Amino acid sequence: MKFTAGQIAELLNGKVEGNTEAIVKNVSKIEDGKPETLTFLANPKYTHFIYETKADVVIVNDSFTAEKNIAATLIRVPDAYQALAQLLEMYEQSQPKKTGIEQPSFIDETAKIGDFAYVGAFSYIGENVQIGDNVQIHPQVYIGNNVKIGDNTILFPGVKIYKNCVIGNNCTLHAGSVIGSDGFGFAPSASNEYKKVPQIGNVILKDHVEIGANTTVDRATMGATVIQKGVKLDNLVQIAHNVEVGENTVIAALSGIAGSTKIGADCMFGGQTGIAGHIQIANKTKLGAQTGVTKSIKKEDTVHLGSPSMNIMDFNKAYVVFRRLPELKKAVDELSK
Amino acid sequence: MKFTAGQIAELLNGKVEGNTEAIVKNVSKIEDGKPETLTFLANPKYTHFIYETKADVVIVNDSFTAEKNIAATLIRVPDAYQALAQLLEMYEQSQPKKTGIEQPSFIDETAKIGDFAYVGAFSYIGENVQIGDNVQIHPQVYIGNNVKIGDNTILFPGVKIYKNCVIGNNCTLHAGSVIGSDGFGFAPSASNEYKKVPQIGNVILKDHVEIGANTTVDRATMGATVIQKGVKLDNLVQIAHNVEVGENTVIAALSGIAGSTKIGADCMFGGQTGIAGHIQIANKTKLGAQTGVTKSIKKEDTVHLGSPSMNIMDFNKAYVVFRRLPELKKAVDELSK
Amino acid sequence: MKFTAGQIAELLNGKVEGNTEAIVKNVSKIEDGKPETLTFLANPKYTHFIYETKADVVIVNDSFTAEKNIAATLIRVPDAYQALAQLLEMYEQSQPKKTGIEQPSFIDETAKIGDFAYVGAFSYIGENVQIGDNVQIHPQVYIGNNVKIGDNTILFPGVKIYKNCVIGNNCTLHAGSVIGSDGFGFAPSASNEYKKVPQIGNVILKDHVEIGANTTVDRATMGATVIQKGVKLDNLVQIAHNVEVGENTVIAALSGIAGSTKIGADCMFGGQTGIAGHIQIANKTKLGAQTGVTKSIKKEDTVHLGSPSMNIMDFNKAYVVFRRLPELKKAVDELSK
Repeated sequence: MKFTAGQIAELLNGKVEGNTEAIVKNVSKIEDGKPETLTFLANPKYTHFIYETKADVVIVNDSFTAEKNIAATLIRVPDAYQALAQLLEMYEQSQPKKTGIEQPSFIDETAKIGDFAYVGAFSYIGENVQIGDNVQIHPQVYIGNNVKIGDNTILFPGVKIYKNCVIGNNCTLHAGSVIGSDGFGFAPSASNEYKKVPQIGNVILKDHVEIGANTTVDRATMGATVIQKGVKLDNLVQIAHNVEVGENTVIAALSGIAGSTKIGADCMFGGQTGIAGHIQIANKTKLGAQTGVTKSIKKEDTVHLGSPSMNIMDFNKAYVVFRRLPELKKAVDELSK
Repeated sequence: MKFTAGQIAELLNGKVEGNTEAIVKNVSKIEDGKPETLTFLANPKYTHFIYETKADVVIVNDSFTAEKNIAATLIRVPDAYQALAQLLEMYEQSQPKKTGIEQPSFIDETAKIGDFAYVGAFSYIGENVQIGDNVQIHPQVYIGNNVKIGDNTILFPGVKIYKNCVIGNNCTLHAGSVIGSDGFGFAPSASNEYKKVPQIGNVILKDHVEIGANTTVDRATMGATVIQKGVKLDNLVQIAHNVEVGENTVIAALSGIAGSTKIGADCMFGGQTGIAGHIQIANKTKLGAQTGVTKSIKKEDTVHLGSPSMNIMDFNKAYVVFRRLPELKKAVDELSK
Repeated sequence: MKFTAGQIAELLNGKVEGNTEAIVKNVSKIEDGKPETLTFLANPKYTHFIYETKADVVIVNDSFTAEKNIAATLIRVPDAYQALAQLLEMYEQSQPKKTGIEQPSFIDETAKIGDFAYVGAFSYIGENVQIGDNVQIHPQVYIGNNVKIGDNTILFPGVKIYKNCVIGNNCTLHAGSVIGSDGFGFAPSASNEYKKVPQIGNVILKDHVEIGANTTVDRATMGATVIQKGVKLDNLVQIAHNVEVGENTVIAALSGIAGSTKIGADCMFGGQTGIAGHIQIANKTKLGAQTGVTKSIKKEDTVHLGSPSMNIMDFNKAYVVFRRLPELKKAVDELSK
């Protein structure tokens, strides 16, 4: 690829500051920008790199004010990170895509595969499966009986989808993710042994859902575990049976949601967060990393931290004192004397 | 399927309260019960739904006392959750099962496969492997040399079992689980580099063990990592080398047990719990979610919380004060004046 | 195998104490040592077993001083654990290794495979892939387009490597690990929906890296996620996009490193640790299990604990008081009266 700053600005509806004819042939990170590359500045932590970067063109926010001289040509846009996303997407879409059925693969004769779909070698497609148009099924994927997959969805290598699950349009499932494994349901008996409760429900992923590598979503005991439209789950996340995750909620790696809990829309959970079973989490709730939530959160748009979790302001104030507890104890001991 | 309340009560040895002829064609959850379905009430949190459910039949505990009028027909049994498990199991067992060898698959000529077993396409079975009767090996499973698998065990798609491991009867291993990967053993050298300690032991799963999706159980350095009879591990659990997990212990998702630790029988660990290496945990120990245990727990039947862990009563009392530490500090500051 | 204590001492440059002709035919753990086996004592927690072990030969540190009579023959070496590693490695290297291409497998015609390599059945090797000499690719592995793999590397069953990634020499990747999945990058839009930021970078694993079962390493947005020489990652670890992990750093299971963070060399992180994004961790940093680090650690060779993390000494002192907070509160209440 080879573009001028002026061409890129036009694609992005941006404004050039500097050399409109500056040439870029690749992209780079601002901290190790190379000549003839394009980079971007969105996170203020990286601002100091813009004065030294060797990249020839930098996409910046309209609001950016330079405090020193900048050698690179700037392209100003309302949101630099979104503009970058847009450019990278154009690049991705220009890449060739495979279509057709690679051999050897196993496709049951009752399965229906949409137009322009790709089925990679060693993939297994069971009875009565329905696959939409333009679906990319990479090698070594398993799709159980009666699964439905919408249009434009991508299943990376080794994804496993158990029987009866439903995957929407425009979803992306990363390698090793498992959809529809049995919920963890056992009925204790008098002898301390456990009797398995068969899990006869399914999992439903709505449209535009992204599932990270080796993430697991269990099928419902009865009914469905539901991942609503636009939800993004990072790698190694666990979603238990009968959970519902609301629209556009984002959950970072190694987090777990216990059974039957309902998560609202537009929530953001940090890594390694845990949420107890059978509770409700309000819309727009934010959780810091490693937070453990044991009770329902009813008020929308609040931020929590700690295990068990507290309002983040209260937690931080308490933790400031925790850090100095030995001093506090000493003061009390002296007062007691 | 189609049953009357009377027929179901007979199967369960239960007692009908209401219309013995009420018809059910499916099951549903009490909170979204539909006409002509059967549901159940076991968790008291859901009691209020019984007065509104549209389900025609509800299985309840003998001890349940209605506080308002209930439209549905009730079936009273000693334990509603167990009765449900029993019904769902009958349903599962009525489903058809595959048998025989699907092609293409790779089965070494020295391997022995039991009667009525199923080997799915793209599965790999190594030298001297012994597979019991009625075993279900779904597609894309890997079974290394010299592995033994007992009768009636189910390996879901993509399970990987390294060489020399032993799997009991009636086990269920979910998709993507890994049994027998190398323990994390490295001998530090003077130059800060690590020399791998080869792991020449194996993993033994006894009968009736269930392993969750993408859970990992490492092989022993020498000897065996042992998962005793009836243990249930949820998804994304890590069991390190030379660990022993005692009978009927249940461990929730994203928990990890470090090397050489011995876990007793009948324990229950919440999600994201962690247990240090080379310690012992007594029988019937219970751990709240996210608990971190660093020392042996010697007394049976105790409950712990926190990281590092404490007795749960002590933790809760301390945490109540933690939440109000800023107030406590203020009181001390004022006393000091 | 069959050796005398004298022969083993010669291999290890050790000194025999006892019967030079004592015979060993296998290895065992000291706590369940059997006659005609070799065992070792390195962890002082296990010292008491040496006085009772039935093993005929025990490797011990030069510094070991017996406090009672020992029946077994001892072999004294400078470092017993390293000596064991050396012996086990000789054993491993004496095991036969497969070479050649097993069928059915899928190898693109543009791929190059080195000498003495093994490619297991159901493995998939994409366009322009370069595989070094003596590489072991077990069954059901996926290797995307343009991937390079160095000499002597082992990929266990079901490893998935996305396109354009680079794997060094002498690496070991365990079953189910995923290298090069998309980083978790989404640009929020005004409507609370997220636009995916395509991840066009890659992952680079340098030489002598070990990756645990079901561990995930995400590709960079731009540039590379880098795992330096000698790094050891345990099972179920998450490394996010654009992270760098320094030489010989060791990270235990269920830990996660968030995006763009730089981890120094020779660090040791316990299980379930979490590190925030966009920060730096100095060389030789040690983290206790379940620690959560939210800010850069600038000083080398320090130890941290807690969430948010503190210097371990400070944390432990504060936690001692935390355990007794109810008493402290009572003391303050009484003083206030």
